[in-house]
Amino acid sequence: MADNKKKVEAITSMDVDFAQWYTDVVRKAELIDYTSVKGCMVIKPAGYAIWELIQNQLDARFKETGVENVYLPMFIPESLLQKEKDHVEGFAPEVAWVTHGGLNPLQERLCVRPTSETLFCDFYKNDIQSYRDLPKVYNQWCSVVRWEKETRPFLRSREFLWQEGHTAHATAEEAEERTIQMLNVYADFLEQVLAIPVVKGKKTDKEKFAGAEATYTIEALMHDGKALQSGTSHNFGNGFAKAFGIQYTGKDNKLEYVHQTSWGMTTRLIGAIIMVHGDDNGLVLPPKVAPTQVMVVPIMQKKEGVLEKAAELKERIKVAGCRVKVDDSDKSPGWKFSEQEMRGIPVRVEIGPKDIEANKCNVVRRDNGEKLEVSIDDLETVVTELLDKIQVEMLERARAHRDEHTYVATNLDELQEILDTKPGFVKAMWCEDRACEDMIKEKFSATSRCMPFEQETLADTCVCCGKPAKKMVYWGRAY
Amino acid sequence: MADNKKKVEAITSMDVDFAQWYTDVVRKAELIDYTSVKGCMVIKPAGYAIWELIQNQLDARFKETGVENVYLPMFIPESLLQKEKDHVEGFAPEVAWVTHGGLNPLQERLCVRPTSETLFCDFYKNDIQSYRDLPKVYNQWCSVVRWEKETRPFLRSREFLWQEGHTAHATAEEAEERTIQMLNVYADFLEQVLAIPVVKGKKTDKEKFAGAEATYTIEALMHDGKALQSGTSHNFGNGFAKAFGIQYTGKDNKLEYVHQTSWGMTTRLIGAIIMVHGDDNGLVLPPKVAPTQVMVVPIMQKKEGVLEKAAELKERIKVAGCRVKVDDSDKSPGWKFSEQEMRGIPVRVEIGPKDIEANKCNVVRRDNGEKLEVSIDDLETVVTELLDKIQVEMLERARAHRDEHTYVATNLDELQEILDTKPGFVKAMWCEDRACEDMIKEKFSATSRCMPFEQETLADTCVCCGKPAKKMVYWGRAY
Repeated sequence: MADNKKKVEAITSMDVDFAQWYTDVVRKAELIDYTSVKGCMVIKPAGYAIWELIQNQLDARFKETGVENVYLPMFIPESLLQKEKDHVEGFAPEVAWVTHGGLNPLQERLCVRPTSETLFCDFYKNDIQSYRDLPKVYNQWCSVVRWEKETRPFLRSREFLWQEGHTAHATAEEAEERTIQMLNVYADFLEQVLAIPVVKGKKTDKEKFAGAEATYTIEALMHDGKALQSGTSHNFGNGFAKAFGIQYTGKDNKLEYVHQTSWGMTTRLIGAIIMVHGDDNGLVLPPKVAPTQVMVVPIMQKKEGVLEKAAELKERIKVAGCRVKVDDSDKSPGWKFSEQEMRGIPVRVEIGPKDIEANKCNVVRRDNGEKLEVSIDDLETVVTELLDKIQVEMLERARAHRDEHTYVATNLDELQEILDTKPGFVKAMWCEDRACEDMIKEKFSATSRCMPFEQETLADTCVCCGKPAKKMVYWGRAY
Repeated sequence: MADNKKKVEAITSMDVDFAQWYTDVVRKAELIDYTSVKGCMVIKPAGYAIWELIQNQLDARFKETGVENVYLPMFIPESLLQKEKDHVEGFAPEVAWVTHGGLNPLQERLCVRPTSETLFCDFYKNDIQSYRDLPKVYNQWCSVVRWEKETRPFLRSREFLWQEGHTAHATAEEAEERTIQMLNVYADFLEQVLAIPVVKGKKTDKEKFAGAEATYTIEALMHDGKALQSGTSHNFGNGFAKAFGIQYTGKDNKLEYVHQTSWGMTTRLIGAIIMVHGDDNGLVLPPKVAPTQVMVVPIMQKKEGVLEKAAELKERIKVAGCRVKVDDSDKSPGWKFSEQEMRGIPVRVEIGPKDIEANKCNVVRRDNGEKLEVSIDDLETVVTELLDKIQVEMLERARAHRDEHTYVATNLDELQEILDTKPGFVKAMWCEDRACEDMIKEKFSATSRCMPFEQETLADTCVCCGKPAKKMVYWGRAY
């Protein structure tokens, strides 16, 4: 147990210093490593395997809605980036510029894509001619670059992995439908796969995407009470189409501009998993995105028959459809327990000589530490059902935490008191004036997270200025 | 049939102009589109779906050999690129340089990765401490950039997609084993999945990778008799380890340098599929990488029951495990046939009112045009078995073509005559002197493709200088 202790002591407690706890988990669970390139990280096997599970399951959900994958260049000529006024203003200050190709200066400099609206527009301009070519519902998996000053693993880095969907439609209604449809795909994915409950809503004009008519968002609450924007879906109307000249000939033979959307989620989701589910022993992974769902740990493994039995149990659990490994390294059981916990593997199966004799084994849940004595005969069934149960209960626990940390404020004093003493979401009414939003941000470092689809009337007046309220808003401090 | 003709006439015949035929297929099969970024392309859904099938099947084969996926930054600081002398000389002239981040010039410029040996070394330097940390068998799927002057879709572009494996081992023997193991994975993948036979061998010193001790390659022969290097696997020995200081403590407590390998395949494989299997009607896809394997085409689809029957057949073929679609668009059957052929869909099922009455349908093979009359009752079985058969026969046909276009030369006159009149591989003996290799390249624009593992003694003397021969070499003109 000395080994075990040593390992556990190396993490800062989340209650002592949440930011340090996060960094400790990211490193000790071997999700990332820092690099010589400032603000960029290595995603190590344990981290990348989570991303692969996210990709596979999200991509399957995309394809069910008719999405097709493509790949566009990583470079955007400066003149192309500048075509849509709001968009270039939003992104130009934070892009990386390529100025030389080989030994020669370029005639026009290229930015490394921070997002690809302009490239998709340039492509759609030629690819779309007639109403028969619509809709286009394309997506790409790639990395993008934003030259951030402050960076944190997964949450904000200069290069990150993401998917970006870009669609073109004949009508405004269809574009709006697709925008909401993808937001719902995102929300459902977070709840069902990542076990993270979200608030769905619309961003205020201040917070919307550069160039969008409307931005919709899913907002999640981290364990420390801070909000994390976890996915966004934008409706561009025909603004980009007009800037880029993307027109189609309708059934009536008239030229019309297309209506466009885009939507994206990133490796930031891994940060969300850590900060929603993690604890002082490390990472806690929802079974659906756990690269290893079950770790079999042999006890007194040098005794005859133990390793063989562990391998047999592993094989049976594998055949039942779970991702399972045996830790047969020469480390102590305590060290192995500690590592399995740090890496967030949902279920541990302990098997030793006495267990074999009694035809049973111990099954331990990572999420709540619960220990079950299980007959070896029932092991696959128990483990399979347990993984399902853990997935459900992790969502319930996260939802309870979110609900317990969602407050109501009806005036500025209340808002301030909540933000300073009870980190979480604050629901409050708003008059829709930008000035009030600016003031709340400036005074309290809190931003409007969204105007939720599920509106409530908490008061008649704006939390800030006391004028008649028009919208209920979720406010919070955010990553 | 007018529509049909129009479509077919739009492609240049491969015998008239192979290069133009290739470009026509790439565009008309809707695999790519050109962009505003010179030398970069859009990979459209039909092209990207092939890449996804390549990725999935290759990645599964990697993982069976213990490969783990990771992601490293796309940027390499100039000082890092320069650490290994041969490597920087090979790549510096063809990289893209980032000089500005946001509004500010960078202190040190960064190149966009042309390949990631230097980044992996920088990472391994910290990640590897002890023999317990070895081997590292990592791979990443990403895009890389090489500032090429002449570009062609899939074959040579400034940005392309690939996988790059990078491994570190305790011993030279283990590194060599991994180098060969991955070359074998590649060769097997090309033969079994892409139906492309390859010659496996070692590159000459002249042709090896910048910084490698040894480069192994798989070489394929295109329909026009030109060679395509389709995958390479490099053994670096401990050269990079010494340049970067990657050392581990052995069991005997001594510090040792690691031995490294890297290996990669790219979207170029899609070019290989086109040029090995394609014909004057367009693309011909091996079933294993065909996004749609079967297209059901209803005939006289406005007649009652035809579309319903087509949908029923589709469903049955789908349940049997094939990727299948119905073309129920309002185009003529001839146009649909032509499109299905252009896109290389391996099998077409034609179903019309008379067929329904007779409880049969026509099944047409894309690869050889063969038409079978099949009882509807047997359809799934016939189609499933046919796809397997097509996969096998496409490989056999490609192998026969390769063998028929592999020649032997024993002196320079023969070599010249073959290269000028019978495009293909030329097997010839070589003295191992660089001067002969240089001369053949200069005089005949032919390069040494590889020194095959399966050596033969065709003559006693070098094809070029007449001195004693040491190696049998495959020569050819190459993409």
